[in-house]
Amino acid sequence: MAELYGGVEAGGTKFVCLAGSDPQHIVDERRFPTAHPDQTIQQTVDFFLPYARRGDLRALAIASFGPVDLHPDSPTYGYITTTPKPDWSFVDLRGRVQRALKLPLAFDTDVNAAAFGERYWTQENRKLDPFLYMTVGTGIGVGVLANGRPVHGLVHPEAGHFPVPHDWQVDPFPGVCPYHGDCLEGLACGVAMNRRWGQPAETLPDDHPAWELEAEYLALGLVNLIYACSPQRIVLGGGVPQHPGLIQRVRQKVQRRLNGYIQSPLALEKIEQYIVPPSLGSRSGALGAIALAIEACQSA
Amino acid sequence: MAELYGGVEAGGTKFVCLAGSDPQHIVDERRFPTAHPDQTIQQTVDFFLPYARRGDLRALAIASFGPVDLHPDSPTYGYITTTPKPDWSFVDLRGRVQRALKLPLAFDTDVNAAAFGERYWTQENRKLDPFLYMTVGTGIGVGVLANGRPVHGLVHPEAGHFPVPHDWQVDPFPGVCPYHGDCLEGLACGVAMNRRWGQPAETLPDDHPAWELEAEYLALGLVNLIYACSPQRIVLGGGVPQHPGLIQRVRQKVQRRLNGYIQSPLALEKIEQYIVPPSLGSRSGALGAIALAIEACQSA
Repeated sequence: MAELYGGVEAGGTKFVCLAGSDPQHIVDERRFPTAHPDQTIQQTVDFFLPYARRGDLRALAIASFGPVDLHPDSPTYGYITTTPKPDWSFVDLRGRVQRALKLPLAFDTDVNAAAFGERYWTQENRKLDPFLYMTVGTGIGVGVLANGRPVHGLVHPEAGHFPVPHDWQVDPFPGVCPYHGDCLEGLACGVAMNRRWGQPAETLPDDHPAWELEAEYLALGLVNLIYACSPQRIVLGGGVPQHPGLIQRVRQKVQRRLNGYIQSPLALEKIEQYIVPPSLGSRSGALGAIALAIEACQSA
Repeated sequence: MAELYGGVEAGGTKFVCLAGSDPQHIVDERRFPTAHPDQTIQQTVDFFLPYARRGDLRALAIASFGPVDLHPDSPTYGYITTTPKPDWSFVDLRGRVQRALKLPLAFDTDVNAAAFGERYWTQENRKLDPFLYMTVGTGIGVGVLANGRPVHGLVHPEAGHFPVPHDWQVDPFPGVCPYHGDCLEGLACGVAMNRRWGQPAETLPDDHPAWELEAEYLALGLVNLIYACSPQRIVLGGGVPQHPGLIQRVRQKVQRRLNGYIQSPLALEKIEQYIVPPSLGSRSGALGAIALAIEACQSA
C-alpha cells in the first residue's frame, strides 16, 4: 500500500484526524469535540496507534489552534500556550502525541497549515508566493506562507487583532475582544456578529445590514494583509465567509479601498481569482497537516 | 585588492552610489539629486564605469524607490512603474544601468534592500526572521524579509497605505495620500506633518502635540506589521523617527496597543530591543544593495 501520513487539525471546538497519502487517498478520518486535553489527546493517539503499530505511518503533523510555541529550541516547543480555553493553557500537545506514537511530528498553527495545504494540494496555487489563508469563524486567524515556508517569527501571525477604523456612529457595537475590544476579530468574528445582532450569523437573512458591515470589516483586514505581505492569493475560509454573496461583497470593498493603488491585474480586474474560497473545503487544516508531514520527511 | 561590489540607493530625492566590499571597506561614494532619468542614470553609470572597466566590480544591485517591477520574467522587470514623480514613470532603471556596465545586477525596493542590509551587516540581526524595515520620511515604506529572503509577491509590500483608525475630533486633518486620503502615509508621513502643522517636522519643538500624534499613528502601523508578519525585529528609519524621543514614544504606544496579547519578552519587556533605529544610519539602502549584490553572486 501507499505510505501513509497523519494529519491532525486541533481546533478549539473539534479535532479532525486524517490518515492518508493525499486528498484523493484518505483511508481513515475521525472528528471529535475538543474536550479535556487528557481525553482529546488520548482520542487522537488512539486513532493513529493501529497505523503506527503496523508501521504504515511515516510521519504526522498537528495543525493547532493557538497561540502555540513554534520555536524548536524552546522548552515549551509544541505547546498550546496562553489560550483562554479552560484546561488547555500550556498543554504539551505535540510532545504528548509524539511520545505515544514515536513518529516524526511536524507542528504549526491551524491557519499556517491550512495555507500550506491549500497551496500544496492545488496545482494552480503551487507557485504563488506569498500565499495567505484567513479564517473567519468563532475567531479570526491568518496563516502566512512567504518564500515557500510558513512564517513563524516572534510568535506567529495574529492578524485577527489588527486595529481597524471603527465608525461608532455607523456601528456602536464595542467589540468582543478581551484584549483590544474593537480590533478586527472583536468586531467581525462569528461571536461578535452573534452578540451585535442577537442571533447567530448563519440565521441572518441575506438582506440584513449585518452582511454589508461584515464585508466592510473583512475588507479592512484583507487590505492590511495585501499592503503588509503583497500576497499572490488569499484564501478566505471558515464558517462566516460561506454565507452566500459575502465573499463577492468583500472583493468589491477590497477593490474600493485599494482604489487602484496596487497596479496588478489580479487586484484591478480579476479579484475573483485573487480572494478565493478554500479548494479543500473544511479539510484545509488537516490536509495541510498531511502536506507538512510529507514535507518534513522530504527535508529530513 | 578585495573584490568590489556596487550598491545604488535610488531614492525619490537623491541617489547614493557606493563601491566597496563591506561597510568598513567602502572605497568610493557619491550622492547626487534625483533629476531627469537620462541625467541621473548617466551619473550612476559614470560613477561605476572606471571600476567596471578595470574589472574590479563583481556585481551591482539597485535599491529603488517604487513602485517597481520585481518579477524577473516580466517585460517591465527592473522598471520604476506607476510613480507620480515627473519623468520617472515606466523608466527601465535596471536595464539601462545593466546595458551600460554589463555586470550582474540585482534589483529590489529601497526598503527591502535596507531591511536586507540591516540584517546582513549587523551580527546580532543575522538570525532574526522575519525582519522588517520601516522608513518614515517624505513617504512611508516598509521592507519585509521572511524565511531569509525579501518578500516580493504580487507587487511588493506597501505598508505605508494601511487604513488606520483616525479620530477626526482629535485630528481633523484629512490626510495627504492622493489614493486614500487618511491612510497611514496620508496622516503620518513628513509631508503630512508639514501640511498639518504649517511647518517642517524637523522645526517642531519637542513639546509640540505633533509628536504625540505622530507616535500614535506610527504605533498603529507597527502593530499592524507585528500582527501580520510576526517580525523578530523592526528597524525604524528615515528622517522623522530621528526626532529625539519619538522612537521611545512609539515603543510605549505599541506596547499599550498590543495590551499583553503578544506573549513574548521582546514585546512585553524589552521593546527597546524590538523596535530599533538603523545600525547603518542613512546608508541602510545602499549598503543593503551591496549585500544583495554579494548574495546574488553567491547564489548564482
